[in-house]
Amino acid sequence: MTTEPVIFINCFEVPKGREDEFFAHWSEVNTYMKTKPGFVSNRLHRAKTPNARIRFINYVLWETEEAWAAAHDEGFRALVQKPHWRDFPPIPAIFEVVSESYAQAA
Amino acid sequence: MTTEPVIFINCFEVPKGREDEFFAHWSEVNTYMKTKPGFVSNRLHRAKTPNARIRFINYVLWETEEAWAAAHDEGFRALVQKPHWRDFPPIPAIFEVVSESYAQAA
Repeated sequence: MTTEPVIFINCFEVPKGREDEFFAHWSEVNTYMKTKPGFVSNRLHRAKTPNARIRFINYVLWETEEAWAAAHDEGFRALVQKPHWRDFPPIPAIFEVVSESYAQAA
Repeated sequence: MTTEPVIFINCFEVPKGREDEFFAHWSEVNTYMKTKPGFVSNRLHRAKTPNARIRFINYVLWETEEAWAAAHDEGFRALVQKPHWRDFPPIPAIFEVVSESYAQAA
């Protein structure tokens, strides 16, 4: 396969002090998603900045948009419909890179 | 230098239909920032998902947190204090990777 992977980024507004709780719930969902066909990789980022509004960002690569869509199945919905997720609203979208820069050699 | 670069992620809520306007203003700032000491690289992501709330995410690497802080200087502030930025509120923070997964070989 030579196509570029699909970039899915999910931002989470997590109340300060509840990061560990969020992480436990997120890990449950991630453990499920990473077994799905077409999953490539993910990196979960946690804010170091105090009072950051978005405290977690999950940067995920999928082989295709179809695989990404198919992975959000009944099993996924059962996990994220658990009541505790109400406190950790996701802001998900598929993205494309539109500008890329590198430092010039000195 | 063997230390890991610092990850700075800036999310932007851009009104739908004003992406090109945002991109022009953002490019002006990025052109300035990428000349600063300690800048490593950046990738600007644009949402493909219709009605995404966060329409742009800039993923930036800096050599150190000090370099990142120093780059946000008077010249930077002069750029982002221009009135048009009021319509494109940034949600910035420094992040660390706390979980990383890769697909298992089939």
